[in-house]
Amino acid sequence: MMINIAAAAEYFKKNDNFLLLCHASPDGDTVGSAAALARALISMGKKAQVRCSDKFTKDYDILLRGIEEQEFEPEHIAAVDVADRKLLGADFEGLYGDRIEMCIDHHASNTLYAPYIYLEPDSASTAEMVYLLIEEMGAEITPEIATCLFTGVSTDTGCFRFVNTTVRTFEIAAKLAAKGAETFRIVQIFFETKTKTYAALERLALNDMRFFFNERCAVICVTRDMYEKTGSDETETTSLANLTRMVEGVLVGVLMKEQKDGSFKISLRTNGDVDASEICKRLGGGGHTGAAACKINAPKQKALAIVLKEIEAELSALETD
Amino acid sequence: MMINIAAAAEYFKKNDNFLLLCHASPDGDTVGSAAALARALISMGKKAQVRCSDKFTKDYDILLRGIEEQEFEPEHIAAVDVADRKLLGADFEGLYGDRIEMCIDHHASNTLYAPYIYLEPDSASTAEMVYLLIEEMGAEITPEIATCLFTGVSTDTGCFRFVNTTVRTFEIAAKLAAKGAETFRIVQIFFETKTKTYAALERLALNDMRFFFNERCAVICVTRDMYEKTGSDETETTSLANLTRMVEGVLVGVLMKEQKDGSFKISLRTNGDVDASEICKRLGGGGHTGAAACKINAPKQKALAIVLKEIEAELSALETD
Repeated sequence: MMINIAAAAEYFKKNDNFLLLCHASPDGDTVGSAAALARALISMGKKAQVRCSDKFTKDYDILLRGIEEQEFEPEHIAAVDVADRKLLGADFEGLYGDRIEMCIDHHASNTLYAPYIYLEPDSASTAEMVYLLIEEMGAEITPEIATCLFTGVSTDTGCFRFVNTTVRTFEIAAKLAAKGAETFRIVQIFFETKTKTYAALERLALNDMRFFFNERCAVICVTRDMYEKTGSDETETTSLANLTRMVEGVLVGVLMKEQKDGSFKISLRTNGDVDASEICKRLGGGGHTGAAACKINAPKQKALAIVLKEIEAELSALETD
Repeated sequence: MMINIAAAAEYFKKNDNFLLLCHASPDGDTVGSAAALARALISMGKKAQVRCSDKFTKDYDILLRGIEEQEFEPEHIAAVDVADRKLLGADFEGLYGDRIEMCIDHHASNTLYAPYIYLEPDSASTAEMVYLLIEEMGAEITPEIATCLFTGVSTDTGCFRFVNTTVRTFEIAAKLAAKGAETFRIVQIFFETKTKTYAALERLALNDMRFFFNERCAVICVTRDMYEKTGSDETETTSLANLTRMVEGVLVGVLMKEQKDGSFKISLRTNGDVDASEICKRLGGGGHTGAAACKINAPKQKALAIVLKEIEAELSALETD
């Protein structure tokens, strides 16, 4: 059942002993939103835990610090920023998949897997929704909660750069800053720091960048060999895809990531009139207009040729429009 | 004479035929602020021109488009975001340096060179001040004006990432977005696009990045040869300095830029407890705690050794603190 903010606030006010679940491969929005909500519930005299199938990296210490490991048996399970129970991770899906009562999320692709769904697909982040929810519950936005929420608000908008950024995003950022959010520190952690292993991988990847179709297409290919050389791994490739699209004149950016079985995961980024999801759909994947993905079960040169063929078709269609 | 916002508004309301001057090597704040003010004055039935000693690149078309080249003899000259008349550029300093009546600026280093100074050193950008000034003058913030001001607000804060970003910055960003500023387009132009020549230069520079002192210091050196190879030039090196500091564990980042005469301009970026201005002062330069610069008249290896020696001293001092 889809519920509104008042009903969501009522649910949290009338219950206790919450387990708040993040999605696997946790990001700033799922952790920041869940941690903020847990802090608000604890401030209301309730018990709440935040858990994730994957280990939280040290980047998230600032969000989770002080949420004590409380000894209690969770009675009510809510998923925060989790569009599909599969995204909980295999073990958590098995453990909790059928027991989730409440889901707070902003993904249009949400599979409506919980009895109560508080969903706002136009919200740039789940953190924006949780900000309003905490106010609705009548809890105070402490500096710690503000910092958690600012993390979600900023990371899910690429620090106010993505097209999902709205007037409300800036308004809530202003309110969180006014409530004492450590905005500068969060930005430093999540946007202005590269691990040494990522920096090394980025260097190798940029060296390998190749251009096609009058330089309207840029391709970066990350091989297992590069991970080995740099001590990096696939979790560190998230921002590489954008580097292709940032080059002036590039309409389609491609990031190819070699998998353990020798196949390639492909991330597409497009500018302007090229629809990334169209290209990926034809290759068995999907996504949004500006960002989409697919998988190609072929060695490097063949995989590249397959992707380039579809991109060429799309670019030619553009010219004849 | 230092004046407040009411007096500044009064000055613009009671006069006409304005020449608004930007600083040389124009950036988003000087152009965005001047263009916004010109548009507001024109909307009030006045005449206003925006000029700069350097040519505006095409990035600024969106800000300047529609501000007609009006035929009139400027009577009142105001400098916008210009901390020192020297920063007008040699030719404009000669032409207008002594005739500037009004200065609107946010630099603490402002040399107070005009009869009227409207200065707010705590403002993250001049654009924030011009937003308030236009409201004070009673002019409407049109979508075009909002776009100009958002350019200044975002570029002078590194898109809300620099430590100067305040609650007011976010509040004004929210208001500008609500007034119809093309926020996404501005961010694309000023933050998400790399020219091909810059992208090539960045690749070469990152390849050349070297680490010293247990990887607490990262150095990038840009040679004339690199400009030649990539078709780039020194105007494109602005964001290279930050790339050094972004690497995890790096306390001091150094960008060395070879000059035509074989000497090196040095840009320092520091994290945490290292004072960049201290290091640069000892080498005849200066700046802020986190960002400073100096010039060393020596060939590459010697210049590097000179900088590293001072950095080593600073890092050692840190350890014994």
